[in-house]
Amino acid sequence: MRQKAVVLASGGMDSCVSATIASKTYDLAMLHVQYGQRTQERELKAFRDIAAHLGAQHTLVTNLDHLAKIGGSSLTDDSMEVTEADLEAVDIPTSYVPFRNAHLLAIATSWAEVLGAVRIFFGAVEEDSSGYPDCRRSFVEAYNSLIEAGTKPETHIQVETPLIELSKEAIVKKGIELDAPLHLTWSCYAAVDEACGHCDSCALRLRGFYRAGHQDPVTYAPGTDRTRYR
Amino acid sequence: MRQKAVVLASGGMDSCVSATIASKTYDLAMLHVQYGQRTQERELKAFRDIAAHLGAQHTLVTNLDHLAKIGGSSLTDDSMEVTEADLEAVDIPTSYVPFRNAHLLAIATSWAEVLGAVRIFFGAVEEDSSGYPDCRRSFVEAYNSLIEAGTKPETHIQVETPLIELSKEAIVKKGIELDAPLHLTWSCYAAVDEACGHCDSCALRLRGFYRAGHQDPVTYAPGTDRTRYR
Repeated sequence: MRQKAVVLASGGMDSCVSATIASKTYDLAMLHVQYGQRTQERELKAFRDIAAHLGAQHTLVTNLDHLAKIGGSSLTDDSMEVTEADLEAVDIPTSYVPFRNAHLLAIATSWAEVLGAVRIFFGAVEEDSSGYPDCRRSFVEAYNSLIEAGTKPETHIQVETPLIELSKEAIVKKGIELDAPLHLTWSCYAAVDEACGHCDSCALRLRGFYRAGHQDPVTYAPGTDRTRYR
Repeated sequence: MRQKAVVLASGGMDSCVSATIASKTYDLAMLHVQYGQRTQERELKAFRDIAAHLGAQHTLVTNLDHLAKIGGSSLTDDSMEVTEADLEAVDIPTSYVPFRNAHLLAIATSWAEVLGAVRIFFGAVEEDSSGYPDCRRSFVEAYNSLIEAGTKPETHIQVETPLIELSKEAIVKKGIELDAPLHLTWSCYAAVDEACGHCDSCALRLRGFYRAGHQDPVTYAPGTDRTRYR
């Protein structure tokens, strides 16, 4: 029997590739967290489609309403606008939910301890993370120390971040190489029918596909210039 | 103007004393988290009473439903019984919610970052913690490293655990010395009108008051032997 891995899956491209990598070695327990983001129903559909495609043994969908209550981010606070993408910016973007990944990894760790899973797959990407502090390798290393300190002595769970050193271009290439179901993913922060093509997330995705020399299988709003971000 | 501290407050005795200590130096932002535990409405009342008594500037009540979905603990899983207290036991008790404090500290950290608070007061107690791994000093130290790694460069938040080295007896004495509103607290895991007097939490509390030589101001079920745990 194979060991289990919990996979954090947003419904986006990075976690889809991360889940596909995990599925080569582990039985999958796929975890999706809603936190009041604008596009959460569309992301949930993408999650379910990807979990079914990869044959996940367990799925869990949870809700972190309090991130919306705490606010401080344009993803959850309707009074803040989602800014236009600026891939050269060095500031932390307004879509940053403070310390969000610590919440997601806490849920993953609790579930992994109950299931007896030995790995948590987390699709964080340092290079393309637009300055989110909780996507960095140093954060993941600190989290692994926290798990060791805060779980039962017989529990040994490690967070794996197979994409953390990759560019979006490399992630697209790896996804296609591994036959990851990229056609089922959803990345756009702003729209739910057709991707908007100009939020941070669309911009990073379009640039990744452009540089990888592949056509993105998802539909963009009419008039989207898929070569704008290169 | 005083700096702000986020205080994690369950409504129990330890966090009440921790909040009272924080109130001597900081403006209080008091945070209460419900996670599907049996006695959550009674604990919420205790939280609100304590926050009002201490003049908290901000309060936030949030809900972590997913801990109940994940299960694995008698506090949230109705199919598991709350075991009778056994203060000599070395096993981790069934009331353990796996990795619970990592969830609570994540919420506290996100809120502290948004509010500009510089401290998180957390009433963890290592000695009397009945073996919860996420109450240990090593866990808190690991969490402080995680906050430094996962928040904005200009954010510097530290978790303080003023009770971590204290026995319940010493906490009772400190609470009385500081005039903490112990009469407003609720500790019992099993009942909501009168404390049951025999769950783990009641046993630790009764033993603490007995050893401190004080009368516990809360009401226990008729026939409770307040000197049973010494």
